[in-house]
Amino acid sequence: MPRYKAIIAYDGTLFHGFQRQPNGRTVQEELEKTLTRMNHGEVIQVHGSGRTDAHVHAAGQVIHFDYPETRDLERMRYALDTQSPEDIAVKSVTIEDETFHARYFVTGKTYQFIVDIGKPRNPFTRNYASFYPYPLTIERIQQALPHFLGTHDFTTFCASGSSIEDKVRTIWQADLEYDESQQRLIFTFRGDGFLYKMIRIMVGTLLKIGNGRMDPDSIPLILEQKNRNLAGPTASPEGLYLMEVEYDPDRLAEKLARYGKQEASE
Amino acid sequence: MPRYKAIIAYDGTLFHGFQRQPNGRTVQEELEKTLTRMNHGEVIQVHGSGRTDAHVHAAGQVIHFDYPETRDLERMRYALDTQSPEDIAVKSVTIEDETFHARYFVTGKTYQFIVDIGKPRNPFTRNYASFYPYPLTIERIQQALPHFLGTHDFTTFCASGSSIEDKVRTIWQADLEYDESQQRLIFTFRGDGFLYKMIRIMVGTLLKIGNGRMDPDSIPLILEQKNRNLAGPTASPEGLYLMEVEYDPDRLAEKLARYGKQEASE
Repeated sequence: MPRYKAIIAYDGTLFHGFQRQPNGRTVQEELEKTLTRMNHGEVIQVHGSGRTDAHVHAAGQVIHFDYPETRDLERMRYALDTQSPEDIAVKSVTIEDETFHARYFVTGKTYQFIVDIGKPRNPFTRNYASFYPYPLTIERIQQALPHFLGTHDFTTFCASGSSIEDKVRTIWQADLEYDESQQRLIFTFRGDGFLYKMIRIMVGTLLKIGNGRMDPDSIPLILEQKNRNLAGPTASPEGLYLMEVEYDPDRLAEKLARYGKQEASE
Repeated sequence: MPRYKAIIAYDGTLFHGFQRQPNGRTVQEELEKTLTRMNHGEVIQVHGSGRTDAHVHAAGQVIHFDYPETRDLERMRYALDTQSPEDIAVKSVTIEDETFHARYFVTGKTYQFIVDIGKPRNPFTRNYASFYPYPLTIERIQQALPHFLGTHDFTTFCASGSSIEDKVRTIWQADLEYDESQQRLIFTFRGDGFLYKMIRIMVGTLLKIGNGRMDPDSIPLILEQKNRNLAGPTASPEGLYLMEVEYDPDRLAEKLARYGKQEASE
């Protein structure tokens, strides 16, 4: 059976996250319902690159699924897109090697986090940005950001209760753009993987730093302590976007040699 | 009693338009509820620069109201903003001469209309842009737009059933920006007033022209005919934004001399 890979976008506002669950509407369940209908009722399972939490958005989530027919790719994309609900969009569909796995083969992810710092709050982005109405010194955030770069144990920035044992991750990019005309901050983080709620805790900590209640150079110290209580609060989910998932064959070989297949991330 | 003027923004998605009505949530009613609560239950009436239809948005709607106290303007803005629902934002508050009237004194309005022409439809703007998935030649729209400039009888572009008698309006600006990265069209129209559904009918006609089903140079001919059936369909409301309302004293003197006070517009 051909294995299809699709890049999808979704507005997380009305979803209880990506992953199927007993109660609550999820992206995975909606896509499985569409594909199963397209497959005359025979169940099709969808695998994502990872979960996203309730209200978190995606501009470039990746899924894979097996479908019994080899269909024209644009027709397949169009069918899946137009037969899924309006808050899910299917951007591209390709056929991959049958060993491809949307989660196991991930070698990098990029997230953005948008913060509305306007007065008043922008009514059009109340579900699409986190709102921070307190004073901010952007230079303090800029000073703190580079401390996240490189390979660290991110236990301090992982929601407690996570079952992942290895909390070492590598961050390649940690940027802030200040969009003055729209009065918003756009954070971009790119790395080999992110722990549960890691980006939201990083952003909550950076806003606390920008507000003057934490030292910009305290990041290395609190990383060392491996203690969630030393980081700032968890920023709200509606500002978070999964932008891109990477599948780099060279990095994958390296990763599989080091960790095996069962790496999980946000 | 001091007369306050406020510039407000609202996400029209969950409103049955601006104007109070027996059934359905409206912007006017929500603002009146907030102000009446702030005034210890004594009713305060809100007057807008004009109505907007259900699902139409505003980035710069103007209202006026009388409030018994002369309050600090930023405190008044903050109270009205934070005590109103999240889909209404209060951008500024000023005190005007007690003869000021948000509707009678209007001398110009600017609207934008956003069309999502992406494949797939952008899931984040399904309530904030009209969707047009058909082939478009943007040059054809550019060719048609200047025909709207100047003073014309816009009967052809007015929803039938409107009770306004004088359908002559002057348009000063009719522009199209093609935002390639977001795959959307942004129309901007500025004029001394617009008839009921006029912009949506103009955009529906321009899209029909862009799609090759009407001649770009047919606008002058169909304007002359004063017949709604000759224009294109009415574009959907979620792409429309009231951006700015103008109160120019010189233009106002001229307008009052010509028409008197009772000019109504969309």
